[in-house]
Amino acid sequence: MNTQDDIDIIVSEVGPRDGLQSIQRSMPTPMKHRWIAALAHSGLREIEVGSFVSPKRLPQMADAAEVVGEAVKLSGVTILALVPNLKGAERAFAAGARKVTVPVSASRAHSIKNIGKTPEEAVAEVKAICAMRDADPRQVRPGVEVGISTAFGCTMEGPISEDWVIALAERLAEAGADSIGLSDTTGYANPAQVKRLFRRLRRTIGEKAGGGHFHNTRGQGLANVVAALEADVTTFDSSQGGLGGCPYAPGASGNIVTEDLVFLLESMGLRTGVDIERLIAARGEIAAGLPGETLYGHLPDAGLPKGFLPAASRKRSLA
Amino acid sequence: MNTQDDIDIIVSEVGPRDGLQSIQRSMPTPMKHRWIAALAHSGLREIEVGSFVSPKRLPQMADAAEVVGEAVKLSGVTILALVPNLKGAERAFAAGARKVTVPVSASRAHSIKNIGKTPEEAVAEVKAICAMRDADPRQVRPGVEVGISTAFGCTMEGPISEDWVIALAERLAEAGADSIGLSDTTGYANPAQVKRLFRRLRRTIGEKAGGGHFHNTRGQGLANVVAALEADVTTFDSSQGGLGGCPYAPGASGNIVTEDLVFLLESMGLRTGVDIERLIAARGEIAAGLPGETLYGHLPDAGLPKGFLPAASRKRSLA
Repeated sequence: MNTQDDIDIIVSEVGPRDGLQSIQRSMPTPMKHRWIAALAHSGLREIEVGSFVSPKRLPQMADAAEVVGEAVKLSGVTILALVPNLKGAERAFAAGARKVTVPVSASRAHSIKNIGKTPEEAVAEVKAICAMRDADPRQVRPGVEVGISTAFGCTMEGPISEDWVIALAERLAEAGADSIGLSDTTGYANPAQVKRLFRRLRRTIGEKAGGGHFHNTRGQGLANVVAALEADVTTFDSSQGGLGGCPYAPGASGNIVTEDLVFLLESMGLRTGVDIERLIAARGEIAAGLPGETLYGHLPDAGLPKGFLPAASRKRSLA
Repeated sequence: MNTQDDIDIIVSEVGPRDGLQSIQRSMPTPMKHRWIAALAHSGLREIEVGSFVSPKRLPQMADAAEVVGEAVKLSGVTILALVPNLKGAERAFAAGARKVTVPVSASRAHSIKNIGKTPEEAVAEVKAICAMRDADPRQVRPGVEVGISTAFGCTMEGPISEDWVIALAERLAEAGADSIGLSDTTGYANPAQVKRLFRRLRRTIGEKAGGGHFHNTRGQGLANVVAALEADVTTFDSSQGGLGGCPYAPGASGNIVTEDLVFLLESMGLRTGVDIERLIAARGEIAAGLPGETLYGHLPDAGLPKGFLPAASRKRSLA
């Protein structure tokens, strides 16, 4: 849920986590610092900077504690980290993360393959993380958000029961999660389903209904964002330059592209707080840290439309 | 307006016109025939097969009469041609086209540059075309549809007044056009604007409100389709393989991709009549007719989701 007064929508940048973990080589730690600082400088309010998983499994994320420790010094931005379990959450909070995001898969097959746990065991892990959060000595309690992955379908199981996704969200809310969002991990979601499922999520768990995490595997990413906006979703994950790509085709990025998402929202009159020129400039830090890496996105190449005004300045001119 | 009972949305394929006219080399006429036949075989209900303009200006379209003459032999599909003026419409009807589409630009600067006429002069031309239509001796009267180009913004003029777009649509309806659609020629449209303008169009000209023609220049094409669906638009133009341009390159057409559009609609439960496998197979005819030409689209590379059911079979299983 978005509670920031000067913006309408939170764009939660996941490139330093989801993008970097999807490519084979590692970005050097000082380059990560520079990129994250440039992203924060563009006005993004949330950045997911790393993943506290085994460095054997994801060596690109081995420096997560160091990256978080540096990123939390930036002002005006909430620093998130992905954690698969209690141990990861301990490390993330110790490093200073203000919020952790825990993936819980709705697909039983995907859950077992991905984290070696059933969805029910994953809910128990979230409960343990929330207990740790409640015992956190810091003045401002850190946040625990959950993203229900494969919420719109699974490459192993195919369609996923919507009743089950909602029941899982309820259990996660009872377990103490601050917000529960829905992730289209596999690029299976369609706008009708997105609108229906997010509306039902809000009816069921109210203010704990979280954001949307869409992939662009089949080109439907921003179409799904429009549908989610119809269901009053106010937080969206995206990755600068669609970093991390997609195993499929040229142009078929994995995560939706932050530049195109911000342009979509701002052109609709929805304030993101992001300065598009600065956001585009931040792409240079990826080019510096990962020379030759393919970046995606239409807006950076097409440029802004003639006479384009960001949402905030249009609102000011109406005031 | 869609009046076909067994489908919910008309996907109007414009690749053989908008796609082919946007690239420098020409597809040989027999290859056009094969491609158009393959598109019709996939179940598409409308195909815009050529443009009756000066062959000096667009040599790729010099065979328009021959292409129309062959295409109208195909059953179950309406064959359209683009015509810039009365002379073009005469040639199109003589060739057997069932419907002509006339571009009328809302931007004065664009209109003069593109067709050497003011928007008011273009309306007069539409009126003359409609008079000719009314005198057509064929049993089934041919159709005259207008697409208002630069309806959402113009690279020369910047923002375009929405009041003016609606006033222009009213004049075109009075001039006798059967339907008036809105075209985002420049990739400037955003979903909020699309929903607002199409709703207003329908309130103003009722059943004459036509379809949406979106470009993907800034990656917003399918997002705008979702917004138009919210405004009850039932016809959308698109181009197979996004033929005719990398959406990134300056001047490229960047039509939305038919394969991704059909997937969007079918996955939402909206029947298009199109068999996706056959549609993807038709790409082979482009490869044969224009070897090496780049094709776009996410779905052809990613494939259908596991357990995917087209809209018609889902409706049947519910019946």
